[in-house]
Amino acid sequence: MSSNSIGKLFSFATWGESHGKAIGCLIDGVPSNIELNEKDIQQYLDKRKPGQSKYTTQRKEEDKVEILSGVFEGITTGHPISLIIHNTDQRSKDYSDIKDKFRPGHADYTYWKKYGIRDYRGGGRSSARETAMRVAAGAVARKVINKKIGNKPKIIGSLVQIGNSKIDYKNWDEKLISQNEFFSPDEKIIPKWKSLIDKARKDGSSLGAIIEIRASGIPAGLGEPIYEKLDSDIAKALMTINAVKGVEIGNGFNSVNENGKTNVDEMVIKNGEPLFLSNNNGGILGGISSGQDIICRFVVKPTSSIISERRTIDINFKETKISTKGRHDPCVGIRAVPVGEAMLATTIADHCLRHF
Amino acid sequence: MSSNSIGKLFSFATWGESHGKAIGCLIDGVPSNIELNEKDIQQYLDKRKPGQSKYTTQRKEEDKVEILSGVFEGITTGHPISLIIHNTDQRSKDYSDIKDKFRPGHADYTYWKKYGIRDYRGGGRSSARETAMRVAAGAVARKVINKKIGNKPKIIGSLVQIGNSKIDYKNWDEKLISQNEFFSPDEKIIPKWKSLIDKARKDGSSLGAIIEIRASGIPAGLGEPIYEKLDSDIAKALMTINAVKGVEIGNGFNSVNENGKTNVDEMVIKNGEPLFLSNNNGGILGGISSGQDIICRFVVKPTSSIISERRTIDINFKETKISTKGRHDPCVGIRAVPVGEAMLATTIADHCLRHF
Amino acid sequence: MSSNSIGKLFSFATWGESHGKAIGCLIDGVPSNIELNEKDIQQYLDKRKPGQSKYTTQRKEEDKVEILSGVFEGITTGHPISLIIHNTDQRSKDYSDIKDKFRPGHADYTYWKKYGIRDYRGGGRSSARETAMRVAAGAVARKVINKKIGNKPKIIGSLVQIGNSKIDYKNWDEKLISQNEFFSPDEKIIPKWKSLIDKARKDGSSLGAIIEIRASGIPAGLGEPIYEKLDSDIAKALMTINAVKGVEIGNGFNSVNENGKTNVDEMVIKNGEPLFLSNNNGGILGGISSGQDIICRFVVKPTSSIISERRTIDINFKETKISTKGRHDPCVGIRAVPVGEAMLATTIADHCLRHF
Amino acid sequence: MSSNSIGKLFSFATWGESHGKAIGCLIDGVPSNIELNEKDIQQYLDKRKPGQSKYTTQRKEEDKVEILSGVFEGITTGHPISLIIHNTDQRSKDYSDIKDKFRPGHADYTYWKKYGIRDYRGGGRSSARETAMRVAAGAVARKVINKKIGNKPKIIGSLVQIGNSKIDYKNWDEKLISQNEFFSPDEKIIPKWKSLIDKARKDGSSLGAIIEIRASGIPAGLGEPIYEKLDSDIAKALMTINAVKGVEIGNGFNSVNENGKTNVDEMVIKNGEPLFLSNNNGGILGGISSGQDIICRFVVKPTSSIISERRTIDINFKETKISTKGRHDPCVGIRAVPVGEAMLATTIADHCLRHF
Repeated sequence: MSSNSIGKLFSFATWGESHGKAIGCLIDGVPSNIELNEKDIQQYLDKRKPGQSKYTTQRKEEDKVEILSGVFEGITTGHPISLIIHNTDQRSKDYSDIKDKFRPGHADYTYWKKYGIRDYRGGGRSSARETAMRVAAGAVARKVINKKIGNKPKIIGSLVQIGNSKIDYKNWDEKLISQNEFFSPDEKIIPKWKSLIDKARKDGSSLGAIIEIRASGIPAGLGEPIYEKLDSDIAKALMTINAVKGVEIGNGFNSVNENGKTNVDEMVIKNGEPLFLSNNNGGILGGISSGQDIICRFVVKPTSSIISERRTIDINFKETKISTKGRHDPCVGIRAVPVGEAMLATTIADHCLRHF
Repeated sequence: MSSNSIGKLFSFATWGESHGKAIGCLIDGVPSNIELNEKDIQQYLDKRKPGQSKYTTQRKEEDKVEILSGVFEGITTGHPISLIIHNTDQRSKDYSDIKDKFRPGHADYTYWKKYGIRDYRGGGRSSARETAMRVAAGAVARKVINKKIGNKPKIIGSLVQIGNSKIDYKNWDEKLISQNEFFSPDEKIIPKWKSLIDKARKDGSSLGAIIEIRASGIPAGLGEPIYEKLDSDIAKALMTINAVKGVEIGNGFNSVNENGKTNVDEMVIKNGEPLFLSNNNGGILGGISSGQDIICRFVVKPTSSIISERRTIDINFKETKISTKGRHDPCVGIRAVPVGEAMLATTIADHCLRHF
Repeated sequence: MSSNSIGKLFSFATWGESHGKAIGCLIDGVPSNIELNEKDIQQYLDKRKPGQSKYTTQRKEEDKVEILSGVFEGITTGHPISLIIHNTDQRSKDYSDIKDKFRPGHADYTYWKKYGIRDYRGGGRSSARETAMRVAAGAVARKVINKKIGNKPKIIGSLVQIGNSKIDYKNWDEKLISQNEFFSPDEKIIPKWKSLIDKARKDGSSLGAIIEIRASGIPAGLGEPIYEKLDSDIAKALMTINAVKGVEIGNGFNSVNENGKTNVDEMVIKNGEPLFLSNNNGGILGGISSGQDIICRFVVKPTSSIISERRTIDINFKETKISTKGRHDPCVGIRAVPVGEAMLATTIADHCLRHF
Repeated sequence: MSSNSIGKLFSFATWGESHGKAIGCLIDGVPSNIELNEKDIQQYLDKRKPGQSKYTTQRKEEDKVEILSGVFEGITTGHPISLIIHNTDQRSKDYSDIKDKFRPGHADYTYWKKYGIRDYRGGGRSSARETAMRVAAGAVARKVINKKIGNKPKIIGSLVQIGNSKIDYKNWDEKLISQNEFFSPDEKIIPKWKSLIDKARKDGSSLGAIIEIRASGIPAGLGEPIYEKLDSDIAKALMTINAVKGVEIGNGFNSVNENGKTNVDEMVIKNGEPLFLSNNNGGILGGISSGQDIICRFVVKPTSSIISERRTIDINFKETKISTKGRHDPCVGIRAVPVGEAMLATTIADHCLRHF
């Protein structure tokens, strides 16, 4: 597929517009003989689903996934798996506000320049709604990883920063992540984040966020030098997510504050097995997994759809102003957590198929 | 090509080991009828060449490039361009030090786990020597961009941080970049960097760096949603460079400190043309170039080859220690500047061929 | 996408099993601003549809296509086009006959060896039903070709041989092709073919066929040496069609009966334009279109599903016999004509996007 | 790589022009820990080398291959293998004859239309000299197949027809193939072929040929439905060879003369293992290998470079005549035998890496 697919052996393509008939995902390369049903996928979609907390958008989308092919009597056949979600929340909205105006910070202007036509309804193809299908693909990817490696791997995303408010890593509690609406591993930060979001809302504004994804139980050897390194494929995969402006592995940009002596991960032997004394490299050396936890982070910029009026232009190149009404996420980074998890899962699944 | 090539229409593959007979690059997709000779390429190789300053490695490598195919009477034919650099500085070294030991922070351990064999001489395939051929490919990519867009585009990299010492953007002077051994756009920071590097050397250690690349004159429309966005391809390309641990576009990780009102790039009309009032998005919206300057940064971790002794293990999984002697870069990020330029150039060239 | 897609810039992937919920096609790379609706596609599907003549299968399949994405207000947007056909003729059959037996000549045994699981209902993924979606993709490809080249191109397939009965090229009448149930360009051969098929049916057997596809109005320059030649991509595309065992271009295998003097296509100038005096090379020289008609042929083996009992084995590796009852095509090559047309159209569309 | 490479996991790219400095091949995806040296490759190059018999071209080309990377101490490292052959027979010829004229039957005219520039020396990139590097890649592919499957596989090509003179399959003697200059498996046909070639030479003409390649010892399961079938990949690979105009698998075009009852390959059990009673499908069912011998054939058109004068045009679109002097193969199909073997080997190696 041209540019709407990702992955070499485990690959998936997505299709559909925010307010079209349906969105979908076509997954190719899934080995045969894996148990798979809609529930396996739906549980991850439900994590990303809007309308679940007052800190995310209040839109109601059922996001009910259906498997159309590639599974026979509950077992994968090795053939492509087609998934579909019918769009149900397509209110016959009045789009006159955004039909001719380019929303700043969005793809409106660049899509117009590139294609000369634009499905303006809800952002069309550039809508974050597309990421629902990534989450679906990620659920299948997890099954593939387990098939290849066994049930040890865990891929867990969490929110580590909203605005300028960062978690305290000393408070890290993995179990907590699934128990709060922010995917926060630090209980103490939550009230702070709530008040930040409330403030941003009142201010007609929005906030950015940083998400961290960790994959544990991944063996050494995944990744293909030189141009299909595990980390370069992760960087690409995460950077395709809407509103992401940066990606880092392990110490990431903070490496610049280390020196050679502190930053190399020294090795010893423990119980006959290699043991790294630190993980500044985020589980990847020379583009290949080292057996340590794979750790990556990405930043999601503040939601561009805000109620405060901004200056912009229209398709006739006239100056105008725009204020994006409607039910938007004050911090779209929150719902990006399951999407980031999914993109790491699909990347690892792809490299599992290549390595094993 | 499997994993040693990058790019879809403008693509290149590299081959060769640090201390093998030669290294090379095969470039495919170059349009016909472009003037090209060895000098066009050599000028960029000379920027990356080691042994040019006391702040980089003292190895002497000629890095003399030869064109073997794809050019007829000084003009490209549309057929693959094969480039070769013969390795001349292959001293018959004593490798007994590193033959059986895994250098921490390097690919030694992961290559061993993946391949079960390792060309340990100078790091073999994982050596930064491979990046010379990227610079060569980048020189050809610039020719392709000019062919497609005209001579306006400029792609210029600079060093913006060594260790914790960052340039002052107010001092930015583009002309300066090519006139100092650090590719610094800020004259005042240079003495500070010199003393930092001297200190690191004395300390048997090394330093990380942040590089910024800017491409100006690039029209709107480059990039292919959803999974071959211009920024995701840039992220991938930069992350393939040795020792890179993070990549960001525009405001990057700093976006998290902005809010929706300050971070969207408002638009007005000036002289009949769209004008953005800021460039927080680094010239890319929805994965497509907006016509503004494309701005990206990447971090290079401190050189892992240091003279200070570190703990590690050997191929028999025995504990040992290693001290990397030899002529290593105290801050490998400096010589990464032309490499980053090249990777941005090849990515843009690829998207030029896809868009125009 | 892994192995269920074809094409580089104009690409499509298919999904779905013969008796699953639906079959579908995802087309990526279609330029924006092309008018497209369901009727544009349905007209070609109707040519392939079963149940139209007593010389093809009597199954009734509506094959009603629906566009799910990528088209906005009747115009393509540049984003992926998702097509779906719901399966309506899924009688709750008794599959006990074929559930455990490998039908000889089919993919049953090899799918079983490869995947260890098999959707045996109607052949599952290996069913010729999949080719309906190729025809749909071909319809869209024609629109792309017209967008790039103008409305001159014509891509027309015809049946030139059934069993040992070959048309007489002297009788060639292009208009006739769409007017008879065999896609025959030779009126005189039709009674012979009818009696051959009647005889094969009575005999509980089936017949092979040769299909010829001609594309006219295609300009010189399409095709990419060395490994993505126009003819090698055509060969691949046609060979992916079920039951195809051979492909040839221009004179094809008959070239062996020519000599260098008779076989080269001499050139002259006529009205200031190059003119070839013959077209033994089928419009392709060195893998690149020459501006002449592109002519290719492929052979479809006799339908393997026959009522006569054949020896085979079952999944427990016991010997058994099988007789395929049901409504099968006595000569599946007839309905392969629109499929061949479609595969040539998609291949040409792909090379149009690469060349122009 | 763009269009000068082939293969997905085992892939290779070639570069170089007939009369340039060198030709070369870059092979990617070769697993580590395979013994490989120049002799392993040279033995196959020597089979294709010109100047070995009076029935092939009298040019003397050493075709001495050198390994530049990817092998360490005689063992593959998993990194790209770069091969080079320096061109030694570059007489400073007088090309004024062909510089401005398009040789009919060659790529001259289409390259000119596509690229607007042409390395006319010896055909440049379109020369059959490029196929030497395919043979080199094929030698490496055989090593990969043996690594994956064990030493059982044999891939042997032979000539089965020159002009209208076909071998008698009843005389088939595999051992004979390597013992005669025609790669003929039928001793009795050789005098006939000699006289045909002598006659063609005297006549200033040339002859076509059909080559058959058989791969035995290949297990069931290779090939990926639907668009990367083993047979469609073979068809593509063989069709990329210069002057090939048709490809067939198993019974191929002759299937049209069979019927369903005779053409399906019935199965029984022998010694507890499945046994096919015939091999009309050439070892491939539904695009996947069945465990039987893989049998394919391709036709090579009569050499277009002949001494007899033919009508053509020049780059100024003036009518002219051309007579190709020099040392050309009277039947280029003979030397295509090792090339066909190589292309089948590389295709099988690629599918081995994908399946196992």
